Amino acid sequence: MAGNSFGQLFKVTTFGESHGPAIGVVIDGVPPRIPLTEKDIQVDLDRRRPGQSKITTQRKESDQVEILSGVFEGQTTGTALAMLIRNQDQRSKDYSDLKDIFRPGHADYTFLKKFGVRDYRGGGRASGRETACRVAAGAVAKKILAKASITIHAYTLSVGDVKATKVDLAVIEKNLVRAPDMDAAEKMIARIEEARKDCDSLGGVIETVIQGCPAGLGDPVFDKLNARLAHAMLSIGTIRGIEFGAGFAATQMRGSAHNDPFCNKNGAVRTATNHAGGILGGISSGENIVFRIAVKPPSSIAKEQETLDLEKKPAKIQVKGRHDPCICPRVVPVVEAMAAMTLADCLLIQRSIQG
Amino acid sequence: MAGNSFGQLFKVTTFGESHGPAIGVVIDGVPPRIPLTEKDIQVDLDRRRPGQSKITTQRKESDQVEILSGVFEGQTTGTALAMLIRNQDQRSKDYSDLKDIFRPGHADYTFLKKFGVRDYRGGGRASGRETACRVAAGAVAKKILAKASITIHAYTLSVGDVKATKVDLAVIEKNLVRAPDMDAAEKMIARIEEARKDCDSLGGVIETVIQGCPAGLGDPVFDKLNARLAHAMLSIGTIRGIEFGAGFAATQMRGSAHNDPFCNKNGAVRTATNHAGGILGGISSGENIVFRIAVKPPSSIAKEQETLDLEKKPAKIQVKGRHDPCICPRVVPVVEAMAAMTLADCLLIQRSIQG
Amino acid sequence: MAGNSFGQLFKVTTFGESHGPAIGVVIDGVPPRIPLTEKDIQVDLDRRRPGQSKITTQRKESDQVEILSGVFEGQTTGTALAMLIRNQDQRSKDYSDLKDIFRPGHADYTFLKKFGVRDYRGGGRASGRETACRVAAGAVAKKILAKASITIHAYTLSVGDVKATKVDLAVIEKNLVRAPDMDAAEKMIARIEEARKDCDSLGGVIETVIQGCPAGLGDPVFDKLNARLAHAMLSIGTIRGIEFGAGFAATQMRGSAHNDPFCNKNGAVRTATNHAGGILGGISSGENIVFRIAVKPPSSIAKEQETLDLEKKPAKIQVKGRHDPCICPRVVPVVEAMAAMTLADCLLIQRSIQG
Amino acid sequence: MAGNSFGQLFKVTTFGESHGPAIGVVIDGVPPRIPLTEKDIQVDLDRRRPGQSKITTQRKESDQVEILSGVFEGQTTGTALAMLIRNQDQRSKDYSDLKDIFRPGHADYTFLKKFGVRDYRGGGRASGRETACRVAAGAVAKKILAKASITIHAYTLSVGDVKATKVDLAVIEKNLVRAPDMDAAEKMIARIEEARKDCDSLGGVIETVIQGCPAGLGDPVFDKLNARLAHAMLSIGTIRGIEFGAGFAATQMRGSAHNDPFCNKNGAVRTATNHAGGILGGISSGENIVFRIAVKPPSSIAKEQETLDLEKKPAKIQVKGRHDPCICPRVVPVVEAMAAMTLADCLLIQRSIQG
Repeated sequence: MAGNSFGQLFKVTTFGESHGPAIGVVIDGVPPRIPLTEKDIQVDLDRRRPGQSKITTQRKESDQVEILSGVFEGQTTGTALAMLIRNQDQRSKDYSDLKDIFRPGHADYTFLKKFGVRDYRGGGRASGRETACRVAAGAVAKKILAKASITIHAYTLSVGDVKATKVDLAVIEKNLVRAPDMDAAEKMIARIEEARKDCDSLGGVIETVIQGCPAGLGDPVFDKLNARLAHAMLSIGTIRGIEFGAGFAATQMRGSAHNDPFCNKNGAVRTATNHAGGILGGISSGENIVFRIAVKPPSSIAKEQETLDLEKKPAKIQVKGRHDPCICPRVVPVVEAMAAMTLADCLLIQRSIQG
Repeated sequence: MAGNSFGQLFKVTTFGESHGPAIGVVIDGVPPRIPLTEKDIQVDLDRRRPGQSKITTQRKESDQVEILSGVFEGQTTGTALAMLIRNQDQRSKDYSDLKDIFRPGHADYTFLKKFGVRDYRGGGRASGRETACRVAAGAVAKKILAKASITIHAYTLSVGDVKATKVDLAVIEKNLVRAPDMDAAEKMIARIEEARKDCDSLGGVIETVIQGCPAGLGDPVFDKLNARLAHAMLSIGTIRGIEFGAGFAATQMRGSAHNDPFCNKNGAVRTATNHAGGILGGISSGENIVFRIAVKPPSSIAKEQETLDLEKKPAKIQVKGRHDPCICPRVVPVVEAMAAMTLADCLLIQRSIQG
Repeated sequence: MAGNSFGQLFKVTTFGESHGPAIGVVIDGVPPRIPLTEKDIQVDLDRRRPGQSKITTQRKESDQVEILSGVFEGQTTGTALAMLIRNQDQRSKDYSDLKDIFRPGHADYTFLKKFGVRDYRGGGRASGRETACRVAAGAVAKKILAKASITIHAYTLSVGDVKATKVDLAVIEKNLVRAPDMDAAEKMIARIEEARKDCDSLGGVIETVIQGCPAGLGDPVFDKLNARLAHAMLSIGTIRGIEFGAGFAATQMRGSAHNDPFCNKNGAVRTATNHAGGILGGISSGENIVFRIAVKPPSSIAKEQETLDLEKKPAKIQVKGRHDPCICPRVVPVVEAMAAMTLADCLLIQRSIQG
Repeated sequence: MAGNSFGQLFKVTTFGESHGPAIGVVIDGVPPRIPLTEKDIQVDLDRRRPGQSKITTQRKESDQVEILSGVFEGQTTGTALAMLIRNQDQRSKDYSDLKDIFRPGHADYTFLKKFGVRDYRGGGRASGRETACRVAAGAVAKKILAKASITIHAYTLSVGDVKATKVDLAVIEKNLVRAPDMDAAEKMIARIEEARKDCDSLGGVIETVIQGCPAGLGDPVFDKLNARLAHAMLSIGTIRGIEFGAGFAATQMRGSAHNDPFCNKNGAVRTATNHAGGILGGISSGENIVFRIAVKPPSSIAKEQETLDLEKKPAKIQVKGRHDPCICPRVVPVVEAMAAMTLADCLLIQRSIQG
């Protein structure tokens, strides 16, 4: 038990290093009789894979998934579902000069302190490449949610100081940065290209909206739905924070303004506002679940930086290779995957107490 | 498994409703031979308990803890450590009129949707009273951390729009609001009293600093130290968000400014800045661990609000009883307790892979 | 996490030492809206408690259970269900002379090696007294099973060399030894009294029959239903072995004789024989689940024995106090409780993959 | 969570069906810096693989293992260790006629009842082929145990009514049936060939001896070392029972004879006899850990049997293909693997409470 698993009933375990032979994922607890093919998985993998556009890394990884078990004649069997993605574009030489030096902002130093050894090739296990496995697992989770009419949309709300001014879910996949606003998208892309030219990188905010989630998911006390989602999101390497509903702005509101009044909408219990972000007491309320995460600017930059080498002596470093100047567009499918895994798990847990 | 437990090796399970006979906690995985008495626990319980000052609720609960098992002749035995707190001030009549109505901002409606039944007396299991058990467990965790020279300080950084302008850990317990700045504390207290007079409530931000944490704690991938801490913090009922190090501000920084350069301080590997908040790749780096959480304004206010009753008909509600106008000072020890539980767990896990 | 919990969805955690202030149990994952009172629990506790007949220990413990949480207005709420049993008859003086010596067959030595400290009063956490908490939790599990028409009967099949020659479930509670055969019971009781007079003790075999269990419970691979039941049974301190269906005798059968032929009984798929004990591939088949466990002769005997003291010097010991000459009749309800907890857990897990 | 994982800190998850593209295993929690190569794994895999001798199935599977992650430059890194074995000899046609019929003694019917769907090719997930993954994981566990000087030997104690009359660990790998007695081995082999000629199969008993295990491993209460080992062993598909030390014979002993007297052997606390099988109160005592398991006769026999088809109509079946007439010699390495995984887990847990 060293952190490679996520979930209680829908339990996802990933493995693999960025420059080893393969990465993969095993899901224990997939309900049986869900139609599933490799194509279902590939759609989301293609949204995450490198080289997809001019504003992402130009590394080439086709990220072809192979289902190894748990599916028979086009549907899940209820047994362990395993998926494999072979690594292809392993330019290990790009990384061999990183053997003796700690990259700022990366996990090189902390892995060494934790384990006393590290696979220095491209970040090894700490590489963002690992998230491909999450996307594959998330695609399976989405199939479970689809049967329950739950949908998840994540999108880039801001890049640096450029913020979307409207949210149109229909345009997210129509611009390279996955913003919900075509005009803002254009400006975001310009900013990203600017940063790349400067051998630098940019952060941003990703917002997620979950629609159709029934009231009752999530557990009180330690496993509140927001606590689980926060765990899920902060487990993505590049995330610095998360806020639900009104978020940090709620700290400057009075209770009378922040409380969402209950009201009757066509016979359903709803709330007039949604400052709570769709979760009350850790349990979904039936309103849209809304949260935002802070994505840091990528640590791998071509600009020269100060650091130390293994002997603790000062050194200069320029991180070579082909890196993302802003990771937001590629994090969007990872966020959706982690949200899907979390909700699928809550859905199965809720079923277990009914009947 | 319905969310009443937290932790992997240092596993805390709480139980109890606010108006039942008692609340309590069992810890499975306490290392043996740690000196421990009820007094060690009581110190932190007294920092959390109601009625401690003019700006908290005036409910009276002495919150006397009784150790039931796991301690023998003044030290832990390694077996399940159980602690009990009897409920005393159960003015159930204050709550009986809430039987048929949903309080805005509370878990009344979502508990009913989840379980089909709810203990409506004072929030039942959803009551903040449950956090007393966390504080008791946290006090045990702190003993483990103390042996490893790890200390945790949480404090109220802001209340509404009043923000501390300096951080002096020495004054936190010297003002009612637990701020690290005596001047700001005075203003915060004034704001809180103002809100109370208006039958309203206020939110705030609590910051936590963990000192002395060695590099190497936390697990890569899903159980990153920040992911676990986020889970821990968002499991506190009143929290709307969390950010580490530079937090949401990092989304407006470039990578070259955000990356913390490694440097050699007296032979130790350190970083010149700490935008990462002491965690790299999900593993502690040896720098101070720093995070902030958004505390919402309490939902229980005496002001009249719109809501629905059990029949989904519009209703007015004034939440009677004696409530906290700002919960920050009483959340501070809960935050410390959850952080302590998280770190103690990571410490035990790290030991298991060494040797 | 030090072994004080059992189960995945119906998760039971016990605490308490035999001579501390109290023992107790918390169940996380009880489905809501199950009618439950303290009387429901007390029935089974009374079947386990000491002093119930002339062939059990004469210690007096009334073992009165108090429900602390998780039940409201006579039904479960879905939140953590906690129960407490105060210890009463703590003749600690009976045990103080055991402080410096290892009782043969007991856990005195191994607890000391594991933890470096031990509560030497009456076995502390290793005492059979802990099983009262299991019985209380099992009573809750039985309520869940009752709704699914699953019943569990355990009984003393043999004591020493006296074996029941017929199985009549109706007579189990009509004789002191809980045998399914009144004639054999008489002989068993005589044997037990004989052993007691000799300051000695006797073992036996307990058989369990689970009726009404639907096909489909239990998980393939590591969590087979028989594997879980074996875990459950061997976790009872006094058990030396377990066998399902034909058991060890199967090792002397040929496959053609051992395989249970499928047949159609009134439209249902059944098997003509039940050598498999109602479990195929780790999953219940719809036949009765049948297993037997080996109960060792109690280690606490008044006869003088050879042993060592804390300084590893030879010593003589006579275990004073009031002990059971044969523990079988009091283990019967514990076996039922562990079986009930295991099945309730499997039932909830199975529900989670349906729908 | 559907039973595909085993262990708490050394957590093993397997996947794969007998006739899918591959089977494999992921281990989460492998301590770092353990030297490991594919050769280390292959040695044990070769002891389990089909076609190894005239008395096992003649199916050909080379069972070549590929390490996919968690090992770098010849040593473990502490990250998820994944291993893959491609399936080769998939004569699916041998099984297609089993699509509409339930094989007696197999999991065909129960899988269908549990999941509503089943991969009927060669047992799918229920196939013994899955145990190859356990053997691979066990080989890693053995490396951890070797560092702690713990060794595990399993051997065939009896086949049908032929029993070994002595135990010489040195000869186990020198006879085809893996018996600790060359003379008995010869007779066992003759019995097995006899059974095969009769289109039938035979069961047997496997005994395991664990040497060098320090006192202190295993947890009191629910996770006793014997309870964990029983869980581990009964999770092997073909096992009908388990007994420790004196086992079922203990039920016919008196306490004075069964208790193992403590004695001082060269300054060490030991016991004069070992009826407890090396475990007291669920914790290892420092004596050899000894247990026996009952292995049923394989269910796949060429002899004609009565059964039902999917429509619940009577049918005759002869299980074609190439099956093991007695599975004992191939179960021996699986037993060792499960024991190794269990002990490695306990060792890591024990480390976590020390320091």
